[in-house]
Amino acid sequence: MDKVKRSERLGAMARILTETPNRIHTLGEFCELFGAAKSTVSEDLDLIGRSFAEFDLGRVETLAGAAGGVRYRPIPSPERARRELDALAERLREPGRMLPGGFLYTSDVTSESRTAQTLGEILAMAYYEAAPDLVLTMETKGIPIALMTARALDVPLVIARRDSRAYEGSAVKINYIAGGGNERIETMALARRSVRAGQRALIVDDFMKGGGTLQGMVDMMREFQAEVVGVCVMIATVEPREKRVKGARSLLVLDGFDRATGRANVLPSEQF
Amino acid sequence: MDKVKRSERLGAMARILTETPNRIHTLGEFCELFGAAKSTVSEDLDLIGRSFAEFDLGRVETLAGAAGGVRYRPIPSPERARRELDALAERLREPGRMLPGGFLYTSDVTSESRTAQTLGEILAMAYYEAAPDLVLTMETKGIPIALMTARALDVPLVIARRDSRAYEGSAVKINYIAGGGNERIETMALARRSVRAGQRALIVDDFMKGGGTLQGMVDMMREFQAEVVGVCVMIATVEPREKRVKGARSLLVLDGFDRATGRANVLPSEQF
Repeated sequence: MDKVKRSERLGAMARILTETPNRIHTLGEFCELFGAAKSTVSEDLDLIGRSFAEFDLGRVETLAGAAGGVRYRPIPSPERARRELDALAERLREPGRMLPGGFLYTSDVTSESRTAQTLGEILAMAYYEAAPDLVLTMETKGIPIALMTARALDVPLVIARRDSRAYEGSAVKINYIAGGGNERIETMALARRSVRAGQRALIVDDFMKGGGTLQGMVDMMREFQAEVVGVCVMIATVEPREKRVKGARSLLVLDGFDRATGRANVLPSEQF
Repeated sequence: MDKVKRSERLGAMARILTETPNRIHTLGEFCELFGAAKSTVSEDLDLIGRSFAEFDLGRVETLAGAAGGVRYRPIPSPERARRELDALAERLREPGRMLPGGFLYTSDVTSESRTAQTLGEILAMAYYEAAPDLVLTMETKGIPIALMTARALDVPLVIARRDSRAYEGSAVKINYIAGGGNERIETMALARRSVRAGQRALIVDDFMKGGGTLQGMVDMMREFQAEVVGVCVMIATVEPREKRVKGARSLLVLDGFDRATGRANVLPSEQF
Protein backbone atom coordinates (compact mmCIF):
# COMPACT_ATOMS: atom_id res chain seq x y z
CA MET A 1 0.00 0.00 0.00
CA ASP A 2 2.79 2.41 0.94
CA LYS A 3 4.58 1.45 -2.24
CA VAL A 4 1.60 2.43 -4.37
CA LYS A 5 1.32 5.68 -2.52
CA ARG A 6 4.94 6.60 -3.04
CA SER A 7 4.72 5.78 -6.70
CA GLU A 8 1.67 8.01 -6.95
CA ARG A 9 3.32 10.87 -5.11
CA LEU A 10 6.55 10.93 -7.08
CA GLY A 11 5.20 11.92 -10.47
CA ALA A 12 2.91 14.56 -9.00
CA MET A 13 5.66 16.01 -6.82
CA ALA A 14 8.09 16.13 -9.77
CA ARG A 15 5.44 17.95 -11.79
CA ILE A 16 4.64 20.49 -9.06
CA LEU A 17 8.31 21.28 -8.41
CA THR A 18 9.30 21.67 -12.06
CA GLU A 19 6.24 23.76 -12.88
CA THR A 20 7.41 26.46 -10.49
CA PRO A 21 11.17 26.81 -11.05
CA ASN A 22 13.11 28.55 -8.25
CA ARG A 23 10.05 28.79 -6.02
CA ILE A 24 10.46 27.49 -2.48
CA HIS A 25 7.87 24.94 -1.41
CA THR A 26 7.65 23.98 2.24
CA LEU A 27 7.67 20.30 3.11
CA GLY A 28 4.41 21.00 4.92
CA GLU A 29 2.76 21.89 1.62
CA PHE A 30 3.49 18.41 0.26
CA CYS A 31 2.63 16.72 3.58
CA GLU A 32 -0.80 18.29 3.44
CA LEU A 33 -1.37 17.58 -0.24
CA PHE A 34 -0.41 13.91 0.03
CA GLY A 35 -1.36 13.20 3.65
CA ALA A 36 2.20 12.00 4.28
CA ALA A 37 4.70 12.52 7.09
CA LYS A 38 7.58 14.95 6.73
CA SER A 39 10.15 12.17 6.78
CA THR A 40 8.30 10.42 3.96
CA VAL A 41 8.08 13.58 1.84
CA SER A 42 11.76 14.16 2.53
CA GLU A 43 12.62 10.71 1.20
CA ASP A 44 10.46 11.32 -1.87
CA LEU A 45 12.30 14.55 -2.60
CA ASP A 46 15.63 12.75 -2.24
CA LEU A 47 14.53 10.17 -4.78
CA ILE A 48 13.36 12.83 -7.24
CA GLY A 49 16.56 14.82 -6.75
CA ARG A 50 18.76 11.78 -7.38
CA SER A 51 16.78 10.81 -10.44
CA PHE A 52 16.95 14.35 -11.88
CA ALA A 53 20.70 14.41 -11.24
CA GLU A 54 21.17 11.05 -12.93
CA PHE A 55 19.25 12.05 -16.06
CA ASP A 56 20.48 15.67 -16.22
CA LEU A 57 17.04 17.17 -15.62
CA GLY A 58 17.94 19.98 -13.22
CA ARG A 59 18.45 20.30 -9.48
CA VAL A 60 16.19 19.72 -6.51
CA GLU A 61 17.65 21.76 -3.64
CA THR A 62 16.68 21.48 0.00
CA LEU A 63 17.02 24.61 2.14
CA ALA A 64 17.34 24.32 5.89
CA GLY A 65 16.18 26.84 8.49
CA ALA A 66 13.15 29.03 9.07
CA ALA A 67 12.79 29.93 5.38
CA GLY A 68 13.44 26.29 4.58
CA GLY A 69 11.85 24.05 2.05
CA VAL A 70 12.65 22.68 -1.36
CA ARG A 71 13.02 24.25 -4.78
CA TYR A 72 13.70 23.14 -8.30
CA ARG A 73 16.18 24.92 -10.55
CA PRO A 74 16.30 23.88 -14.22
CA ILE A 75 20.11 23.95 -14.31
CA PRO A 76 21.60 21.79 -17.06
CA SER A 77 25.00 20.12 -16.73
CA PRO A 78 27.83 22.01 -18.48
CA GLU A 79 27.89 19.20 -21.05
CA ARG A 80 24.19 19.49 -21.84
CA ALA A 81 24.35 23.31 -21.97
CA ARG A 82 27.26 23.03 -24.39
CA ARG A 83 25.42 20.45 -26.51
CA GLU A 84 22.37 22.70 -26.71
CA LEU A 85 24.43 25.74 -27.70
CA ASP A 86 26.38 23.71 -30.29
CA ALA A 87 23.11 22.51 -31.81
CA LEU A 88 21.72 26.04 -31.90
CA ALA A 89 24.90 27.42 -33.48
CA GLU A 90 24.68 24.69 -36.10
CA ARG A 91 21.09 25.66 -36.93
CA LEU A 92 22.09 29.30 -37.25
CA ARG A 93 24.88 28.31 -39.65
CA GLU A 94 22.31 26.88 -42.08
CA PRO A 95 22.62 28.62 -45.45
CA GLY A 96 20.03 31.29 -46.29
CA ARG A 97 20.05 33.09 -42.95
CA MET A 98 22.13 36.04 -44.18
CA LEU A 99 20.09 39.24 -44.39
CA PRO A 100 21.09 42.66 -45.75
CA GLY A 101 23.09 44.80 -43.31
CA GLY A 102 25.01 41.97 -41.67
CA PHE A 103 21.93 40.68 -39.88
CA LEU A 104 21.06 37.07 -39.22
CA TYR A 105 17.56 35.62 -39.58
CA THR A 106 16.78 34.11 -36.18
CA SER A 107 13.03 34.72 -35.72
CA ASP A 108 12.13 31.10 -36.31
CA VAL A 109 14.54 30.03 -33.58
CA THR A 110 13.89 32.77 -31.01
CA SER A 111 10.15 32.25 -31.01
CA GLU A 112 10.24 28.48 -30.62
CA SER A 113 9.05 27.88 -27.07
CA ARG A 114 11.34 24.88 -26.56
CA THR A 115 14.45 26.75 -27.72
CA ALA A 116 13.49 29.89 -25.82
CA GLN A 117 13.04 27.79 -22.70
CA THR A 118 16.40 26.04 -23.06
CA LEU A 119 18.21 29.34 -23.63
CA GLY A 120 16.33 31.02 -20.80
CA GLU A 121 17.38 28.22 -18.46
CA ILE A 122 21.03 28.50 -19.49
CA LEU A 123 20.96 32.29 -19.03
CA ALA A 124 19.15 32.07 -15.68
CA MET A 125 21.75 29.61 -14.38
CA ALA A 126 24.36 32.39 -14.32
CA TYR A 127 22.15 34.77 -12.31
CA TYR A 128 20.55 32.79 -9.49
CA GLU A 129 23.14 34.15 -7.07
CA ALA A 130 22.59 37.74 -8.24
CA ALA A 131 18.92 37.29 -7.25
CA PRO A 132 17.26 39.67 -9.73
CA ASP A 133 13.74 40.92 -8.94
CA LEU A 134 12.77 41.22 -12.58
CA VAL A 135 13.91 40.58 -16.14
CA LEU A 136 13.85 43.54 -18.54
CA THR A 137 13.78 43.24 -22.32
CA MET A 138 12.95 45.51 -25.25
CA GLU A 139 10.26 44.52 -27.71
CA THR A 140 10.04 42.32 -29.80
CA LYS A 141 12.36 39.48 -30.67
CA GLY A 142 13.93 39.06 -27.25
CA ILE A 143 10.59 38.55 -25.49
CA PRO A 144 10.34 34.75 -25.71
CA ILE A 145 13.86 34.17 -24.36
CA ALA A 146 13.46 36.88 -21.71
CA LEU A 147 10.12 35.39 -20.63
CA MET A 148 11.66 31.95 -20.25
CA THR A 149 14.61 33.42 -18.31
CA ALA A 150 12.11 35.14 -16.01
CA ARG A 151 10.25 31.84 -15.68
CA ALA A 152 13.41 29.98 -14.63
CA LEU A 153 14.18 32.69 -12.07
CA ASP A 154 10.53 33.01 -10.90
CA VAL A 155 10.49 36.78 -11.38
CA PRO A 156 8.28 39.06 -13.51
CA LEU A 157 9.18 40.09 -17.04
CA VAL A 158 9.08 43.80 -17.92
CA ILE A 159 8.95 44.88 -21.56
CA ALA A 160 10.25 48.25 -22.79
CA ARG A 161 8.41 49.61 -25.83
CA ARG A 162 9.45 51.61 -28.85
CA ASP A 163 6.77 54.12 -28.05
CA SER A 164 4.49 54.46 -25.07
CA ARG A 165 1.08 53.10 -25.92
CA ALA A 166 -2.10 54.49 -24.46
CA TYR A 167 -2.90 51.22 -22.74
CA GLU A 168 0.14 51.17 -20.50
CA GLY A 169 -0.57 54.40 -18.62
CA SER A 170 2.08 56.98 -17.79
CA ALA A 171 5.54 56.02 -18.98
CA VAL A 172 9.16 57.08 -18.73
CA LYS A 173 10.65 57.84 -22.14
CA ILE A 174 14.32 58.07 -22.98
CA ASN A 175 16.35 58.44 -26.14
CA TYR A 176 19.19 56.11 -26.95
CA ILE A 177 21.69 55.60 -29.76
CA ALA A 178 20.85 52.56 -31.83
CA GLY A 179 22.62 50.92 -34.76
CA GLY A 180 26.16 49.60 -34.91
CA GLY A 181 26.89 51.09 -38.32
CA ASN A 182 24.30 53.74 -39.21
CA GLU A 183 23.76 55.40 -35.85
CA ARG A 184 20.42 56.97 -35.08
CA ILE A 185 18.49 58.24 -32.10
CA GLU A 186 15.59 56.07 -31.03
CA THR A 187 13.03 56.24 -28.26
CA MET A 188 12.34 53.68 -25.58
CA ALA A 189 9.38 53.82 -23.20
CA LEU A 190 8.59 51.92 -20.05
CA ALA A 191 5.39 52.03 -18.00
CA ARG A 192 6.05 53.95 -14.81
CA ARG A 193 4.43 51.34 -12.61
CA SER A 194 6.40 48.42 -13.98
CA VAL A 195 9.60 48.88 -11.93
CA ARG A 196 10.13 50.19 -8.37
CA ALA A 197 13.18 52.00 -6.99
CA GLY A 198 15.73 49.63 -5.52
CA GLN A 199 14.70 46.62 -7.58
CA ARG A 200 17.37 44.44 -9.17
CA ALA A 201 17.06 44.02 -12.93
CA LEU A 202 18.52 41.41 -15.25
CA ILE A 203 18.58 42.68 -18.85
CA VAL A 204 17.99 40.04 -21.55
CA ASP A 205 17.79 40.46 -25.32
CA ASP A 206 18.18 38.33 -28.41
CA PHE A 207 20.88 40.20 -30.31
CA MET A 208 23.73 42.63 -29.65
CA LYS A 209 25.61 44.44 -32.37
CA GLY A 210 26.63 47.92 -31.19
CA GLY A 211 25.09 47.44 -27.76
CA GLY A 212 23.14 50.71 -27.95
CA THR A 213 19.74 49.22 -27.17
CA LEU A 214 21.16 47.35 -24.19
CA GLN A 215 22.83 50.54 -22.93
CA GLY A 216 19.45 52.25 -23.39
CA MET A 217 17.92 49.64 -21.06
CA VAL A 218 20.72 50.24 -18.52
CA ASP A 219 19.99 54.00 -18.70
CA MET A 220 16.28 53.30 -18.31
CA MET A 221 16.92 51.34 -15.12
CA ARG A 222 18.91 54.31 -13.78
CA GLU A 223 15.81 56.47 -14.38
CA PHE A 224 13.86 54.06 -12.19
CA GLN A 225 16.67 53.93 -9.58
CA ALA A 226 16.87 50.21 -10.18
CA GLU A 227 20.11 48.24 -10.08
CA VAL A 228 21.29 46.25 -13.10
CA VAL A 229 22.69 42.89 -11.97
CA GLY A 230 23.50 41.57 -15.44
CA VAL A 231 23.19 42.11 -19.19
CA CYS A 232 23.00 39.12 -21.50
CA VAL A 233 21.93 38.17 -25.01
CA MET A 234 21.48 35.09 -27.15
CA ILE A 235 23.95 36.19 -29.81
CA ALA A 236 26.50 39.01 -30.11
CA THR A 237 28.42 40.08 -33.19
CA VAL A 238 32.21 40.11 -32.95
CA GLU A 239 32.27 43.45 -34.84
CA PRO A 240 32.24 46.16 -33.64
CA ARG A 241 34.56 44.95 -30.85
CA GLU A 242 33.81 48.05 -28.80
CA LYS A 243 30.22 47.84 -27.51
CA ARG A 244 28.26 50.76 -26.09
CA VAL A 245 27.24 48.63 -23.12
CA LYS A 246 29.90 47.21 -20.82
CA GLY A 247 30.08 43.70 -19.43
CA ALA A 248 27.36 42.10 -21.55
CA ARG A 249 27.58 38.34 -21.98
CA SER A 250 26.29 36.28 -24.88
CA LEU A 251 25.51 32.62 -25.42
CA LEU A 252 26.72 32.69 -29.04
CA VAL A 253 28.92 34.90 -31.19
CA LEU A 254 28.40 35.86 -34.83
CA ASP A 255 31.69 36.44 -36.62
CA GLY A 256 30.40 37.64 -39.98
CA PHE A 257 29.33 35.59 -42.97
CA ASP A 258 31.12 33.46 -45.50
CA ARG A 259 30.40 35.45 -48.69
CA ALA A 260 30.76 32.44 -50.98
CA THR A 261 28.30 30.15 -49.19
CA GLY A 262 26.18 32.74 -47.33
CA ARG A 263 26.83 30.82 -44.13
CA ALA A 264 26.94 32.69 -40.83
CA ASN A 265 29.98 32.03 -38.67
CA VAL A 266 28.17 31.29 -35.43
CA LEU A 267 29.82 29.62 -32.45
CA PRO A 268 29.20 29.26 -28.70
CA SER A 269 30.81 32.18 -26.88
CA GLU A 270 32.31 30.16 -24.01
CA GLN A 271 30.89 32.82 -21.65
CA PHE A 272 28.27 30.51 -20.13
CA MET B 1 16.00 -3.23 -6.24
CA ASP B 2 13.14 -2.94 -8.72
CA LYS B 3 11.36 -0.68 -6.26
CA VAL B 4 14.31 1.73 -6.14
CA LYS B 5 14.47 1.71 -9.89
CA ARG B 6 10.81 2.50 -10.33
CA SER B 7 10.98 5.28 -7.82
CA GLU B 8 13.92 6.72 -9.71
CA ARG B 9 12.21 6.45 -13.08
CA LEU B 10 8.93 8.05 -12.08
CA GLY B 11 10.18 11.55 -11.31
CA ALA B 12 12.39 11.64 -14.38
CA MET B 13 9.63 10.35 -16.65
CA ALA B 14 7.15 12.88 -15.26
CA ARG B 15 9.67 15.63 -15.92
CA ILE B 16 10.42 14.52 -19.48
CA LEU B 17 6.75 14.19 -20.41
CA THR B 18 5.66 17.53 -18.94
CA GLU B 19 8.62 19.39 -20.44
CA THR B 20 7.39 18.56 -23.91
CA PRO B 21 3.62 19.09 -23.88
CA ASN B 22 1.68 17.45 -26.72
CA ARG B 23 4.78 15.72 -28.09
CA ILE B 24 4.50 11.99 -28.68
CA HIS B 25 7.21 9.91 -27.03
CA THR B 26 7.55 6.26 -27.99
CA LEU B 27 7.70 3.72 -25.21
CA GLY B 28 10.97 2.58 -26.77
CA GLU B 29 12.50 5.97 -25.96
CA PHE B 30 11.86 5.42 -22.25
CA CYS B 31 12.87 1.74 -22.43
CA GLU B 32 16.25 2.77 -23.80
CA LEU B 33 16.77 5.63 -21.39
CA PHE B 34 15.94 3.58 -18.31
CA GLY B 35 17.00 0.13 -19.48
CA ALA B 36 13.51 -1.16 -18.69
CA ALA B 37 11.05 -3.46 -20.46
CA LYS B 38 8.06 -2.08 -22.32
CA SER B 39 5.60 -3.56 -19.87
CA THR B 40 7.47 -1.89 -17.00
CA VAL B 41 7.51 1.50 -18.72
CA SER B 42 3.83 1.05 -19.49
CA GLU B 43 3.05 0.48 -15.81
CA ASP B 44 5.14 3.55 -14.87
CA LEU B 45 3.15 5.69 -17.29
CA ASP B 46 -0.10 4.37 -15.82
CA LEU B 47 1.06 5.37 -12.35
CA ILE B 48 2.04 8.86 -13.51
CA GLY B 49 -1.20 9.29 -15.41
CA ARG B 50 -3.31 8.25 -12.40
CA SER B 51 -1.37 10.53 -10.11
CA PHE B 52 -1.70 13.51 -12.49
CA ALA B 53 -5.44 12.85 -12.76
CA GLU B 54 -5.82 12.66 -9.00
CA PHE B 55 -4.02 15.96 -8.38
CA ASP B 56 -5.39 17.83 -11.44
CA LEU B 57 -1.97 18.16 -13.12
CA GLY B 58 -2.90 17.40 -16.70
CA ARG B 59 -3.36 14.28 -18.81
CA VAL B 60 -1.02 11.49 -19.81
CA GLU B 61 -2.47 9.93 -22.95
CA THR B 62 -1.43 6.64 -24.51
CA LEU B 63 -1.84 6.30 -28.26
CA ALA B 64 -2.05 2.86 -29.84
CA GLY B 65 -0.93 1.85 -33.32
CA ALA B 66 2.01 2.54 -35.60
CA ALA B 67 2.28 6.21 -34.60
CA GLY B 68 1.74 5.11 -31.01
CA GLY B 69 3.35 6.30 -27.85
CA VAL B 70 2.52 8.57 -25.00
CA ARG B 71 2.01 12.30 -24.68
CA TYR B 72 1.30 14.81 -21.97
CA ARG B 73 -1.29 17.55 -22.37
CA PRO B 74 -1.46 20.25 -19.68
CA ILE B 75 -5.26 20.22 -19.59
CA PRO B 76 -6.74 21.51 -16.35
CA SER B 77 -10.06 20.29 -14.98
CA PRO B 78 -13.00 22.64 -15.71
CA GLU B 79 -13.00 23.52 -11.99
CA ARG B 80 -9.33 24.49 -11.96
CA ALA B 81 -9.64 26.45 -15.23
CA ARG B 82 -12.58 28.32 -13.74
CA ARG B 83 -10.71 28.99 -10.49
CA GLU B 84 -7.72 30.38 -12.43
CA LEU B 85 -9.94 32.63 -14.55
CA ASP B 86 -11.85 33.83 -11.48
CA ALA B 87 -8.56 34.70 -9.75
CA LEU B 88 -7.31 36.53 -12.83
CA ALA B 89 -10.57 38.48 -13.19
CA GLU B 90 -10.31 39.45 -9.54
CA ARG B 91 -6.77 40.77 -10.06
CA LEU B 92 -7.93 42.78 -13.06
CA ARG B 93 -10.74 44.29 -10.98
CA GLU B 94 -8.15 45.82 -8.59
CA PRO B 95 -8.59 49.61 -8.48
CA GLY B 96 -6.11 51.70 -10.45
CA ARG B 97 -6.15 49.67 -13.65
CA MET B 98 -8.37 52.09 -15.59
CA LEU B 99 -6.44 53.91 -18.33
CA PRO B 100 -7.59 56.73 -20.62
CA GLY B 101 -9.60 55.56 -23.66
CA GLY B 102 -11.37 52.70 -21.93
CA PHE B 103 -8.21 50.61 -21.73
CA LEU B 104 -7.21 48.32 -18.92
CA TYR B 105 -3.67 48.03 -17.54
CA THR B 106 -2.77 44.37 -17.88
CA SER B 107 0.96 44.39 -18.72
CA ASP B 108 2.00 43.16 -15.28
CA VAL B 109 -0.33 40.19 -15.63
CA THR B 110 0.27 39.31 -19.29
CA SER B 111 4.04 39.19 -18.91
CA GLU B 112 4.09 37.01 -15.81
CA SER B 113 5.36 33.67 -17.03
CA ARG B 114 3.20 31.68 -14.61
CA THR B 115 0.00 33.49 -15.62
CA ALA B 116 0.90 33.39 -19.31
CA GLN B 117 1.48 29.66 -19.02
CA THR B 118 -1.81 29.01 -17.24
CA LEU B 119 -3.75 31.06 -19.80
CA GLY B 120 -1.86 29.46 -22.68
CA GLU B 121 -2.78 26.02 -21.36
CA ILE B 122 -6.46 26.94 -21.02
CA LEU B 123 -6.52 28.39 -24.55
CA ALA B 124 -4.62 25.42 -26.02
CA MET B 125 -7.10 23.01 -24.46
CA ALA B 126 -9.81 24.20 -26.86
CA TYR B 127 -7.67 23.68 -29.96
CA TYR B 128 -5.92 20.31 -29.65
CA GLU B 129 -8.53 18.78 -31.97
CA ALA B 130 -8.12 21.57 -34.54
CA ALA B 131 -4.42 20.62 -34.71
CA PRO B 132 -2.90 24.00 -35.63
CA ASP B 133 0.58 24.04 -37.18
CA LEU B 134 1.46 27.41 -35.68
CA VAL B 135 0.28 30.15 -33.35
CA LEU B 136 0.18 33.69 -34.77
CA THR B 137 0.19 36.85 -32.67
CA MET B 138 0.87 40.54 -33.26
CA GLU B 139 3.56 42.29 -31.24
CA THR B 140 3.79 43.04 -28.30
CA LYS B 141 1.58 42.34 -25.34
CA GLY B 142 0.09 39.10 -26.61
CA ILE B 143 3.48 37.44 -27.10
CA PRO B 144 3.86 35.78 -23.67
CA ILE B 145 0.39 34.20 -23.76
CA ALA B 146 0.75 33.23 -27.42
CA LEU B 147 4.16 31.67 -26.71
CA MET B 148 2.75 29.61 -23.87
CA THR B 149 -0.20 28.54 -26.04
CA ALA B 150 2.28 27.45 -28.71
CA ARG B 151 4.27 25.61 -26.04
CA ALA B 152 1.21 23.69 -24.85
CA LEU B 153 0.39 22.74 -28.46
CA ASP B 154 4.03 22.02 -29.38
CA VAL B 155 3.94 24.27 -32.45
CA PRO B 156 6.02 27.32 -33.43
CA LEU B 157 5.00 30.88 -32.60
CA VAL B 158 4.94 33.43 -35.41
CA ILE B 159 4.97 37.14 -34.59
CA ALA B 160 3.53 39.80 -36.90
CA ARG B 161 5.25 43.18 -36.62
CA ARG B 162 4.08 46.76 -36.89
CA ASP B 163 6.69 47.35 -39.55
CA SER B 164 9.02 44.98 -41.33
CA ARG B 165 12.46 45.16 -39.82
CA ALA B 166 15.61 44.69 -41.82
CA TYR B 167 16.57 41.64 -39.81
CA GLU B 168 13.56 39.57 -40.79
CA GLY B 169 14.19 39.50 -44.53
CA SER B 170 11.46 39.96 -47.13
CA ALA B 171 8.02 40.42 -45.64
CA VAL B 172 4.36 40.57 -46.62
CA LYS B 173 2.78 43.86 -45.58
CA ILE B 174 -0.92 44.58 -45.31
CA ASN B 175 -3.02 47.46 -44.05
CA TYR B 176 -5.79 46.93 -41.55
CA ILE B 177 -8.32 49.05 -39.68
CA ALA B 178 -7.40 49.42 -36.03
CA GLY B 179 -9.17 51.13 -33.16
CA GLY B 180 -12.66 50.52 -31.83
CA GLY B 181 -13.53 54.20 -31.52
CA ASN B 182 -11.06 56.33 -33.46
CA GLU B 183 -10.52 54.22 -36.53
CA ARG B 184 -7.22 54.40 -38.34
CA ILE B 185 -5.27 52.48 -40.94
CA GLU B 186 -2.25 50.62 -39.60
CA THR B 187 0.33 48.35 -41.15
CA MET B 188 1.18 44.80 -40.24
CA ALA B 189 4.18 42.89 -41.59
CA LEU B 190 5.09 39.23 -41.47
CA ALA B 191 8.33 37.61 -42.64
CA ARG B 192 7.67 35.74 -45.85
CA ARG B 193 9.43 32.62 -44.67
CA SER B 194 7.54 32.32 -41.40
CA VAL B 195 4.36 30.65 -42.76
CA ARG B 196 3.86 28.17 -45.62
CA ALA B 197 0.79 27.75 -47.82
CA GLY B 198 -1.64 25.21 -46.40
CA GLN B 199 -0.55 25.57 -42.78
CA ARG B 200 -3.18 25.82 -40.06
CA ALA B 201 -2.92 28.91 -37.86
CA LEU B 202 -4.34 29.62 -34.42
CA ILE B 203 -4.51 33.37 -33.78
CA VAL B 204 -3.90 34.46 -30.18
CA ASP B 205 -3.77 37.97 -28.69
CA ASP B 206 -4.15 39.60 -25.31
CA PHE B 207 -6.96 42.08 -25.96
CA MET B 208 -9.87 42.60 -28.35
CA LYS B 209 -11.89 45.78 -28.57
CA GLY B 210 -12.98 46.41 -32.18
CA GLY B 211 -11.36 43.22 -33.45
CA GLY B 212 -9.52 45.04 -36.26
CA THR B 213 -6.07 43.75 -35.39
CA LEU B 214 -7.37 40.20 -35.19
CA GLN B 215 -9.12 40.60 -38.55
CA GLY B 216 -5.80 41.93 -39.89
CA MET B 217 -4.16 38.69 -38.80
CA VAL B 218 -6.93 36.69 -40.48
CA ASP B 219 -6.33 38.69 -43.70
CA MET B 220 -2.60 38.13 -43.35
CA MET B 221 -3.11 34.38 -43.18
CA ARG B 222 -5.18 34.58 -46.38
CA GLU B 223 -2.17 36.27 -48.06
CA PHE B 224 -0.09 33.25 -47.07
CA GLN B 225 -2.83 30.82 -48.15
CA ALA B 226 -2.90 29.52 -44.61
CA GLU B 227 -6.07 28.37 -42.88
CA VAL B 228 -7.24 30.00 -39.64
CA VAL B 229 -8.49 27.33 -37.22
CA GLY B 230 -9.31 29.69 -34.36
CA VAL B 231 -9.11 33.23 -33.01
CA CYS B 232 -8.85 33.80 -29.27
CA VAL B 233 -7.82 36.43 -26.75
CA MET B 234 -7.31 36.81 -23.04
CA ILE B 235 -9.87 39.58 -22.66
CA ALA B 236 -12.52 41.12 -24.92
CA THR B 237 -14.54 44.27 -24.32
CA VAL B 238 -18.32 43.94 -24.38
CA GLU B 239 -18.54 47.20 -26.38
CA PRO B 240 -18.59 47.48 -29.33
CA ARG B 241 -20.79 44.38 -29.58
CA GLU B 242 -20.11 44.13 -33.30
CA LYS B 243 -16.49 43.02 -33.79
CA ARG B 244 -14.62 43.26 -37.09
CA VAL B 245 -13.47 39.68 -36.71
CA LYS B 246 -16.02 36.88 -36.53
CA GLY B 247 -16.04 33.96 -34.13
CA ALA B 248 -13.32 35.12 -31.77
CA ARG B 249 -13.41 33.66 -28.27
CA SER B 250 -12.11 35.24 -25.09
CA LEU B 251 -11.21 33.96 -21.64
CA LEU B 252 -12.49 37.11 -19.91
CA VAL B 253 -14.81 39.99 -20.75
CA LEU B 254 -14.41 43.65 -19.84
CA ASP B 255 -17.76 45.37 -19.39
CA GLY B 256 -16.56 48.94 -18.84
CA PHE B 257 -15.49 50.58 -15.62
CA ASP B 258 -17.24 51.70 -12.48
CA ARG B 259 -16.63 55.44 -12.71
CA ALA B 260 -16.91 56.00 -8.95
CA THR B 261 -14.35 53.40 -7.88
CA GLY B 262 -12.28 53.10 -11.08
CA ARG B 263 -12.83 49.36 -10.95
CA ALA B 264 -12.96 47.39 -14.18
CA ASN B 265 -15.92 45.08 -14.59
CA VAL B 266 -14.02 41.94 -15.56
CA LEU B 267 -15.54 38.47 -15.51
CA PRO B 268 -14.84 35.06 -17.02
CA SER B 269 -16.51 34.85 -20.44
CA GLU B 270 -17.88 31.30 -20.05
CA GLN B 271 -16.51 30.59 -23.54
CA PHE B 272 -13.78 28.23 -22.30
